Amino acid sequence: MDIQQFVEQSIGQWRSQRSGHNLAFQFFEEVRSTITIEPRDRTDTAVLDLCQQNNIDPTLAHSPFWMTWKGESDWDDDSKVEGSCLLVPIPNGPDRGQLLRSQGYAETMPAVGDYYFSDDVFILTTSYDRAAAEERIWFAAPNIRIRVSLIKTSDGTGVVTASYASEIRSLGEKGIGE
Amino acid sequence: MDIQQFVEQSIGQWRSQRSGHNLAFQFFEEVRSTITIEPRDRTDTAVLDLCQQNNIDPTLAHSPFWMTWKGESDWDDDSKVEGSCLLVPIPNGPDRGQLLRSQGYAETMPAVGDYYFSDDVFILTTSYDRAAAEERIWFAAPNIRIRVSLIKTSDGTGVVTASYASEIRSLGEKGIGE
Repeated sequence: MDIQQFVEQSIGQWRSQRSGHNLAFQFFEEVRSTITIEPRDRTDTAVLDLCQQNNIDPTLAHSPFWMTWKGESDWDDDSKVEGSCLLVPIPNGPDRGQLLRSQGYAETMPAVGDYYFSDDVFILTTSYDRAAAEERIWFAAPNIRIRVSLIKTSDGTGVVTASYASEIRSLGEKGIGE
Repeated sequence: MDIQQFVEQSIGQWRSQRSGHNLAFQFFEEVRSTITIEPRDRTDTAVLDLCQQNNIDPTLAHSPFWMTWKGESDWDDDSKVEGSCLLVPIPNGPDRGQLLRSQGYAETMPAVGDYYFSDDVFILTTSYDRAAAEERIWFAAPNIRIRVSLIKTSDGTGVVTASYASEIRSLGEKGIGE
C-alpha cells in the first residue's frame, strides 16, 4: 500500500458509524455521518495555497483530496457534526511522508502530520500545542474502512479520548457527482 | 514485541469501555466491563488439557494466560456480560504462532487462531464455521490497551460487526490477588 493506492481506495462516499470514548469518565458518544472523499488536482488553487502556507514545493504534492463530512451526534441534538478539509500528502519515501491539512477533524486549526504505512495500515501522527493525535486507517474489505483516532496528552503519558469509526462505501469513485 | 512481552504487558486488571457496531443497521452497543488477565503455568492442568484437545505438544506452549471479564451492556439491562477463557500461545517463530482458546470472546466454542505481530500490533485471525474474526490489539501507552475486533462473513466479502475497546489498567501485575 502506498499513498496513491490508499487515496484511490478512499475516494467515494462513505456511511460512517463512529463511537467516541472519553477514557477518564467512560463516556460514550455516538455519531452517524456521511463522508465524501474527492480527488483534487495538484494544480488546484487550494492545493497550491496550502503548500505555499507550509513553504512546500507544490510539485512534491501527491494525490491531494478533499474530505467532507456531515452527521449527527447523540451528545447534542441541535448540533450537526459537519465540516470539510483539504488534505495534501507530501511523500518523502514509498511508504511515508507528511500530510498537510487545511483544517483537522477535531481541530479547527490547520495541521501538518507525519504518516507511514505498516502492514497496509495508514498511520498518521499529528502534534498540536497541548496534545498529539494518532490515527490508524485501514481497509477491512475494499468497501469497508476502519478508522481509529487517539488523542494523547502532548507528553505522551496518556490517552484522553479514543474514536472508532466503521465506514461502509455507499458510492464508488464513479458515483461522485453523478 | 513478541508474545512474551505482549502477555506480560497485558497481565493485570483493566477497566474496559467497548462499542459494538452493527454495520448493516448502524446499531451501537455500549459495554462497560472489568477484564482480568492472569498468567498460568505451562504445567497447569487446564493448559495441558487444552493442548491435548488440540493434539499439540504442551512443551511448545508459551506464556499461557487466563482472561476473565464481567460487565454490563446497554442492550439488555438484565443480562450481565461475563465469562472467562484460557488462552495458550503456541509460537512457531519470533513474531507469529497459534493461539488456543478454551472458549472465544463472542463464541461459546473453543477455537484456534493464528497470530502475528506487525509494528507492535498483535493481529489474531480465527476462522469459524460461517464467519472469521480478526482482532488487533496494541498498547497506546503502557497502561492503555486498544482492541479492535471485526467479525467477517467466512467468504471474506464483508464485515458484519465491529467492536472497539479502550482499556485502562486499573491494577498492575503485582496488584492481582492482593
